[in-house]
Amino acid sequence: MDWLKIFRGEKQKNSAQTAKDRLMVAVAYQREGRMNGPNYLPQMREEILAVVRKYIRVPDGAVQFNVQREDGLEVLELNITLPEDSPR
Amino acid sequence: MDWLKIFRGEKQKNSAQTAKDRLMVAVAYQREGRMNGPNYLPQMREEILAVVRKYIRVPDGAVQFNVQREDGLEVLELNITLPEDSPR
Repeated sequence: MDWLKIFRGEKQKNSAQTAKDRLMVAVAYQREGRMNGPNYLPQMREEILAVVRKYIRVPDGAVQFNVQREDGLEVLELNITLPEDSPR
Repeated sequence: MDWLKIFRGEKQKNSAQTAKDRLMVAVAYQREGRMNGPNYLPQMREEILAVVRKYIRVPDGAVQFNVQREDGLEVLELNITLPEDSPR
């Protein structure tokens, strides 16, 4: 997947918001032939975010959550605008 | 960002490989005005995978890693094909 193109395109679309560093995390779960994702998904996502927070200081207010669902596909997106001194 | 479109498109491209459930994790870090990304990505990748393994039995051969870099943008992708009885 050409992630560079995907994220660069997003940057241009939202250029006014992206002068600072940004962190984007997407977790997608795709199930064949079943409508609902597993019920551990929310907790697994929280733990994945906790790992990211270990490495990058993420202010609570800077995190945007977005969940997209369609048939057997469920995608959690985290879009985080980082303070200038964010790297640990 | 239209993640459903992104991941659905990927599914169609690789339809032969995607009859099973899949878990995809993408972490993108965009730094303004600095050339090199942080060097903690490999370790963060291992910890994210460890979280996934807490919930899902993931065979080693089922994990694809991919890192893309360009200027101030660095993207880590984990693509995991899940066995049919994967949930623990």
